[in-house]
Amino acid sequence: MVKESIAVIGAGSWGTALAIVLADNQHEVRLWGHNQKQIDEINQFHINEKYLPGIQLSEAIKGYFSLEEALEGIETIILAVPTKAYREVLGNIAVLAKQPLTIVHVSKGIEPDTLLRISEMIEENASPTWLKDVVVLSGPSHAEEVSLRHPTTVTVSSKNMKAAEKVQDLFMNHHFRVYTNPDLIGVEIGGALKNIIALAAGITDGLGYGDNAKAALITRGLAEISRLGTAMGANPLTFSGLTGIGDLIVTCTSVHSRNWRAGNMLGKGQNLQDVLDNMGMVVEGVRTTKAAYQLAKKYEVNMPITEALYGVLFNGQDLKGAVDQLMTRMKTSEMEELFNILDSRQQ
Amino acid sequence: MVKESIAVIGAGSWGTALAIVLADNQHEVRLWGHNQKQIDEINQFHINEKYLPGIQLSEAIKGYFSLEEALEGIETIILAVPTKAYREVLGNIAVLAKQPLTIVHVSKGIEPDTLLRISEMIEENASPTWLKDVVVLSGPSHAEEVSLRHPTTVTVSSKNMKAAEKVQDLFMNHHFRVYTNPDLIGVEIGGALKNIIALAAGITDGLGYGDNAKAALITRGLAEISRLGTAMGANPLTFSGLTGIGDLIVTCTSVHSRNWRAGNMLGKGQNLQDVLDNMGMVVEGVRTTKAAYQLAKKYEVNMPITEALYGVLFNGQDLKGAVDQLMTRMKTSEMEELFNILDSRQQ
Repeated sequence: MVKESIAVIGAGSWGTALAIVLADNQHEVRLWGHNQKQIDEINQFHINEKYLPGIQLSEAIKGYFSLEEALEGIETIILAVPTKAYREVLGNIAVLAKQPLTIVHVSKGIEPDTLLRISEMIEENASPTWLKDVVVLSGPSHAEEVSLRHPTTVTVSSKNMKAAEKVQDLFMNHHFRVYTNPDLIGVEIGGALKNIIALAAGITDGLGYGDNAKAALITRGLAEISRLGTAMGANPLTFSGLTGIGDLIVTCTSVHSRNWRAGNMLGKGQNLQDVLDNMGMVVEGVRTTKAAYQLAKKYEVNMPITEALYGVLFNGQDLKGAVDQLMTRMKTSEMEELFNILDSRQQ
Repeated sequence: MVKESIAVIGAGSWGTALAIVLADNQHEVRLWGHNQKQIDEINQFHINEKYLPGIQLSEAIKGYFSLEEALEGIETIILAVPTKAYREVLGNIAVLAKQPLTIVHVSKGIEPDTLLRISEMIEENASPTWLKDVVVLSGPSHAEEVSLRHPTTVTVSSKNMKAAEKVQDLFMNHHFRVYTNPDLIGVEIGGALKNIIALAAGITDGLGYGDNAKAALITRGLAEISRLGTAMGANPLTFSGLTGIGDLIVTCTSVHSRNWRAGNMLGKGQNLQDVLDNMGMVVEGVRTTKAAYQLAKKYEVNMPITEALYGVLFNGQDLKGAVDQLMTRMKTSEMEELFNILDSRQQ
């Protein structure tokens, strides 16, 4: 494998964990962050205490506070900032970009109002003169476990699968397995929308419902993600893969998941604003719920969990009433809605 | 809804929990078991202390030790015995059956060597003179939670969907939601094979791997179940439903699951025979692993998790070596195998 210099933009837990994987593979990693103190900590002590406490970083990972220096002469950018910071960061990259760049995005979301997937948002904010390829990397992967070299599997996708395979080679190692899937829409939609279901699963857990209810919620959640994704042009089978059900399971059943934790606090009766203030990290699921609610309207897809959560988060609807209504919907055939969407696509 | 007398054959935790649902729906329930002391306990104290400790049973649930009396004049049998007892119990029913009977089976397994699904085994052991319909009821449903009226969803299927809808009506209530799915093969295969993956998930948890690894294992497990089921004629989408991924999630992530618990003990280094002796309940996954291994050979389907587990359970292969090999298989495209099977079916 050719060793190269790679810029990881965003020094949160996921960006830092991916920097560790790249450094393990002998690449030189430039980890950019907007907090000078954090960057100094990375360079002096080789730790990122706030986001990956207790993890020793390789000296091959160098912290950068200057985006210009981080991008100097590199070919590949790993973009690991919260989705709401994308436009600002892309604007800054566009000013500095001198050579053709492959952008690997590892964030999960849909932009509310524009309803763009992240790869679309990147294309909209970039110029063909410097943007070579966009690749998404997604899958069931808590950053904490990746940093501990626990076995982890993820998927890469792109309009240009040659670019995805290049990214597969950069990241693949014994602990971190990288699969390819050509269904870019399905990979991005699955990753984004699982955060909605994780919020809802946290709520049912917070309300004290059991494992049967949570399994049903995850299953019905997967079904509505599949319906929307399929209506948008994804391959429905992608949602049965690592970036669909795999990521959904890990996000809904692990205490590491911040979306689940936020939902859990809501289910236990805390106020939404208090929950968001207390998290100290971005809860992507709240923003994604709004976007998915808008997408469901646009594509005329039935998304009862998303709609119920939207009512709770944005219209002050009663939490327990919304969950009870979800559990007792009078649908009696499991898959008719997905079949209807597939039928309508074939017409 | 018409109230009727229903025989539940098998007074373990699942049979008793389903008896509770039927009694909640005002049916008269005859709960048959082969242990006189247990039946006396049900009739005198309205409890089933060994299998559902702490749960008070309705007086509408009557314990029966005589199979003849339990079957007298009834139309519907719920068959809730371990799969290896099926042939014996069906033989006894065949001798006593006088009127047309619908058999609802709620067990999960495949018979080793004959490789019959449970509905096929029932048909083989019954006569058309008395067997009216066979219905399967399956889904993510820990008995303990059902007995506590926690929200639960299951699926029913049959060759005759009118019979499945009748069973849906018998069981449906506010806490216990029943869906229909016409894909009998998919519903039975999903329910049976999830126990294999639960054993494997228990092993990885016992070995101390993390949530990322377990999510990957569940996802790859679902993929191999789908591949086998699809080769056998199932609809691949069924495996994304309640009886597929739903049941798989609950079995792999809950401490209630005896298959997961058995795997967990194996992962922590206990000997197989000791684990089986200590469980005190049937671990269906062990028997199903053998059947699925044989099915994979018969249908020429690649099932790496099943094959690895078969090696560990039946050929004394090293546990950690088998798991590590699974995690580092050099497959790089997520779905090519399922697509190949679908392609070959269409030819």
